Parts: sequence; structure tokens; C-alpha cells
Amino acid sequence: MFTEKTVQELAQVLGEKLTQAELVVATAESCTGGGVAYAITEISGSSLWFDRSFVTYSNAAKIEMIDVAASIIKEFGAVSEQVAEQMAIGAVKNSDADIAVAISGIAGPEGGTIDKPVGTVCISWYNAHSHSKTASYLFVGDRSDVRTQAIRLALLGLIEII
Amino acid sequence: MFTEKTVQELAQVLGEKLTQAELVVATAESCTGGGVAYAITEISGSSLWFDRSFVTYSNAAKIEMIDVAASIIKEFGAVSEQVAEQMAIGAVKNSDADIAVAISGIAGPEGGTIDKPVGTVCISWYNAHSHSKTASYLFVGDRSDVRTQAIRLALLGLIEII
Repeated sequence: MFTEKTVQELAQVLGEKLTQAELVVATAESCTGGGVAYAITEISGSSLWFDRSFVTYSNAAKIEMIDVAASIIKEFGAVSEQVAEQMAIGAVKNSDADIAVAISGIAGPEGGTIDKPVGTVCISWYNAHSHSKTASYLFVGDRSDVRTQAIRLALLGLIEII
Repeated sequence: MFTEKTVQELAQVLGEKLTQAELVVATAESCTGGGVAYAITEISGSSLWFDRSFVTYSNAAKIEMIDVAASIIKEFGAVSEQVAEQMAIGAVKNSDADIAVAISGIAGPEGGTIDKPVGTVCISWYNAHSHSKTASYLFVGDRSDVRTQAIRLALLGLIEII
């Protein structure tokens, strides 16, 4: 449905849907490094539907800012659905937002393994009032491509869970 | 000196200088919405010199995440050198970073006043080990232009204070 839309168009649609639903969003980002927040705030008036973002690049940031359990990082790795889910829930709990998206992945070109190759991205969407979703993806392309695809999908998923 | 460089080239230079100096950076961003963090993390290997970012879009986020005093926001406004300075210091204090940049501004097209027209951006650079700097700017252009100029200058200033 939104496959032809650009990141900026998706951010516009997201803003309209959040406004209609009277919901506020937050993000928790690792491999996208704040790119989802940057896209959301590119839309004028976004202070009405965007509260804050936790760019938790290091493991310490994930633990300290949004309550990810160190034991979960140790057991499943920072790039895992378990960590992404905790990040999304933690983003809502530590903000004034109702919904959040969390992204943890390996944008490359380094950091890939056989189990988790470059392009592996785990995304979790959490809506405190209704349904949530967590999934893993394998994106193709260079570092910039992987990040852009993750940002696009993060926005699409937020639109879906409103 | 860097006036011809793109945002990505500046982020590359910043990463090299941080690596040489063995310093870690954090950002605290309001009007740029995570754009500085996004630029820094576009460089492969940035986990070595970037810890986290606080995208403190709302006033509550500024107060809760990086210890900006509510009284300072009330007295000088969220877009002020005083608030930007507290944001930068708070970003270092609440992270594992040695240096930070903080940005608060009016990207527009709405939110401008006679005293603080659209394009007004306050930026503060803080180095826990040496010199710091805070200044106000008036950028020309649309929302996207203002944000891009603020991101560029934020990166340039970080390079300067290392």
C-alpha cells in the first residue's frame, strides 16, 4: 500500500494518523542512529505527535536509558528480537509516548556473522493501548541502503499499529 | 576550512579526530531531531566513538533525560543559549561520552517570533576535558535547509573542540 512512498511521505502519513488517533510516538534506535526520529521531525508540527527518541547505540545506553536487561543482551545479543522488544517497551515506559518503534541491526560493512549477516535488522513496534509486533529482516545493500530500508519499514509499521 | 565538505564528509573527519583523541561523543538534539546522530552513525565503525543521543524534542524530555532545569526553560525559553548549554553538559553527564553537542532551534515554518524568528538555532559544544562554546545562529531557508545547516555546524564545532 505504501510501497511507492518516500520516507518523507511516510512520515507525513504517520503524523496525520497519530494526530487523528491523538497518540504520541517515541523511538529507540541503534543501527538507524536517530534516522527514524529525524524523518518524523522533518514534518512541520511534529512536536504535537513526537515526544523524544533514545538513540541507544552502545549496550550501556540500551540498559541505562530504556531498561534493556543486560542478561538479555548477553543471552540473545544486542541484535535480537528480544532486545528490540525490550527497547520498544522501554521507550514508551521512559517517555510520554503511547507507541514506539525500536530498531537494532547490523548495518555493515563490518559486524556480520554467519547467524546474523550484515543487513540483519530486528524491529519491534509497541502500542501501549493495542497490538504490538516484533520481526527480523535481512536487507540487501550497503550501510546506507540497509539503514534507509530499516527507517522506511519502521515508519510503515508505526502506521500499521495505530 | 571545511566549508566545502558535505555532512557525510564532516562526519568522517569527526570520526577520525575522535579516534585519534580517544574521545567519545554524544548528542542532545531538539530541532535537528536526531540528524546529527544519524550523520555520525552513517560512518562505519562509529560505535567506537559514538555512545548515544538524546533526542529531547519536548520540554519534558529535556528535563527528564538531560537535567535541563524547568526554571531555565521558563525564564529563557527552550530555544536559548542557556538551555542549549545545559543540554550539552547534561548529555555528557548522562552518558559515557567525553564531548557533546546540543541543538535547540526553530526550524519552522511555524513557531517563529519577532525576538526569535524561524531559523534561530542555539548550539552548544561541551568538552569535559577542555574548552566549550555556545552560540546562536540565524539560518536562512525552509525547514529542511535550517536543519541541514544546523547539523553541518554542529559537526564542524565538534571537530573544533576536540
